[in-house]
Amino acid sequence: MPAITLHDLQNKLHEQIPLTKTIGIRVTDYSGETLTLSAPLQNNINHKSTAFGGSLYSVAVLAGWGLLYTKLNELDLSGHIVIQQSNVNYLQPVKSDIIATCSVGDITTFERFIRTFNKKGMARIKLASVIMQGDEAAVEFEGSYVVHV
Amino acid sequence: MPAITLHDLQNKLHEQIPLTKTIGIRVTDYSGETLTLSAPLQNNINHKSTAFGGSLYSVAVLAGWGLLYTKLNELDLSGHIVIQQSNVNYLQPVKSDIIATCSVGDITTFERFIRTFNKKGMARIKLASVIMQGDEAAVEFEGSYVVHV
Repeated sequence: MPAITLHDLQNKLHEQIPLTKTIGIRVTDYSGETLTLSAPLQNNINHKSTAFGGSLYSVAVLAGWGLLYTKLNELDLSGHIVIQQSNVNYLQPVKSDIIATCSVGDITTFERFIRTFNKKGMARIKLASVIMQGDEAAVEFEGSYVVHV
Repeated sequence: MPAITLHDLQNKLHEQIPLTKTIGIRVTDYSGETLTLSAPLQNNINHKSTAFGGSLYSVAVLAGWGLLYTKLNELDLSGHIVIQQSNVNYLQPVKSDIIATCSVGDITTFERFIRTFNKKGMARIKLASVIMQGDEAAVEFEGSYVVHV
């Protein structure tokens, strides 16, 4: 179990990045390996009644940020988490609420990232988030995050 | 001169994507080759008093969208403009208002894109946007856009 609750993480996002309140970001699930954020379509709608690409990006990038924040918190670590680089593929329009899930990925890579952070006070990791539309991936996001003390 | 004014384009963005009102998107310049959008830091601030990565992305992706919309409008064309893929490099934090400029780029490539759109009713183009911080690039964005009838 994380030291931080889903509710606390959601409040933290809303406090630290006020725009996330308008986006309607909710922290909906944490499994230990994945963190899921969601946001209502209505807050993020465009002229085609689908989700705005900038909103999809925001929910995806914050799923990675939130996952790192939660994992560091579990390990009694803290650091500044910064997005450095990202790639996004929009595979199909999102016509319902935005649900973005970010996964820790390969555990060996993640453990190496934590060791580097402990040793050097700075480390980088690539994380993938996906936004599903029914059973199919609608948005694939990959971000390189830097964590530093 | 475009058939659409900067003011009309700004209103269009605000009407079609309501979140852009909270982001505070303004259409500030169009040169024929480049379109510049801006947004106040205050609307997009994070816990480090710099601009949220999702906001930077949103302004950059909309600079490309707005440039395509304006160029098509100039040519008496209209189509649906969709972002398909993007890469973003965050080079340094943005500590002031967000100003994103998107350029048409190579004119031969742009003309080929227009010819393809006229012929096939669908065409793709890569556009680059940059967000400056003083004299230096802070965010480099490249997006692949699809325009279709």
